[in-house]
Amino acid sequence: MNVRMVDFTNEEIAKQLAVVEPLTDSVRALIDAVIRTEVDDDRLNAAKAKIDEVVADLTSQQMPGSYGLAFTPDLEGMPWGNAAVGARNAIAPPMRIDHPGDGTASSEVHLGAAYEGPSGLVHGGVSALLLDQLVGEVVSVGDEIPSFTGTLTVKYLRPTPLGTVNLRAEITGREGRKTFVRGEIFTDAGPTVTAEAVMIRPQISPVPE
Amino acid sequence: MNVRMVDFTNEEIAKQLAVVEPLTDSVRALIDAVIRTEVDDDRLNAAKAKIDEVVADLTSQQMPGSYGLAFTPDLEGMPWGNAAVGARNAIAPPMRIDHPGDGTASSEVHLGAAYEGPSGLVHGGVSALLLDQLVGEVVSVGDEIPSFTGTLTVKYLRPTPLGTVNLRAEITGREGRKTFVRGEIFTDAGPTVTAEAVMIRPQISPVPE
Repeated sequence: MNVRMVDFTNEEIAKQLAVVEPLTDSVRALIDAVIRTEVDDDRLNAAKAKIDEVVADLTSQQMPGSYGLAFTPDLEGMPWGNAAVGARNAIAPPMRIDHPGDGTASSEVHLGAAYEGPSGLVHGGVSALLLDQLVGEVVSVGDEIPSFTGTLTVKYLRPTPLGTVNLRAEITGREGRKTFVRGEIFTDAGPTVTAEAVMIRPQISPVPE
Repeated sequence: MNVRMVDFTNEEIAKQLAVVEPLTDSVRALIDAVIRTEVDDDRLNAAKAKIDEVVADLTSQQMPGSYGLAFTPDLEGMPWGNAAVGARNAIAPPMRIDHPGDGTASSEVHLGAAYEGPSGLVHGGVSALLLDQLVGEVVSVGDEIPSFTGTLTVKYLRPTPLGTVNLRAEITGREGRKTFVRGEIFTDAGPTVTAEAVMIRPQISPVPE
């Protein structure tokens, strides 16, 4: 586990994001380019050599393990390494999630060539990844202790074409430490994938006196 | 949809992979490096400039849309753009899946910092992505028409730490166009995530005479 407090001010965070977000976006463009390029082998090899130079420089000073979860003094989470929403993680599209605070959440995400499963379609597992993140956030927003997914049931109603997709989720019930959430991915033609999730709030044992 | 025949020989495919696999691995290393680096802003900006140069070169000649699905004259599929297994897709760990042909499939995958959800743990949605790919492959191997996931029910038994994880899946039953599959992720400590999938073989309408 790598959970740490950082003493960044909001201004410092904004300054960091102004550098790392464009860098991560460039890596996203690179992922897409490597999938779709038709340049010859010499140019592919030259590309690899340049990327290796960048990697050598960036890894000359780095944190051990994963990014983990950093919290500011205001207890604002910085999930910058997260595979679905991380500002520093080029695997993340990234999802930007709206939380109006009324038990719902939504997101509009652009999914390009890197999110493909069947030809021209969003990978079913990518749909599950985005829905898992969304149902987790709708339950955890405002809570000190995030809930974890217990069970996620994903139904594929019809194929989801690559491109811009929309997601929404809402809390449908609570029972003890469980919260029930329904989520879906939809396009202009209607819902393509639905998810039913049982979210579980971890039990925190009291510290023995 | 981008399904196309390519006239590559097996030798030509091996030659292409010998170039694109190391390039994609370098991009994977870059994704990890951008998450974990602690170099200063000047060096981050220099990294971005170099990556942008590579992107400009690679995109000067590229296919439209996504990689799609290419088939060789032997009808061997080349899912090189796939988000879980694609040889050209740096989002894919990639999974390399063993299909002994007996209704089972398995894979050992290394999941580094880029696959993080909760601190130090594999993102629940990444687990779903890998399981979705595995259950799809165990059903489709040897079939001319791949089955699609109808429903995927994922149960999270305990957290999955980042690092090397193992997956296995097996067909548990068939009923008309449906195939039932059970899959799981496990570490040395036992299973961490299970999946039950209902896979559906698409109905191909006969061509009217």
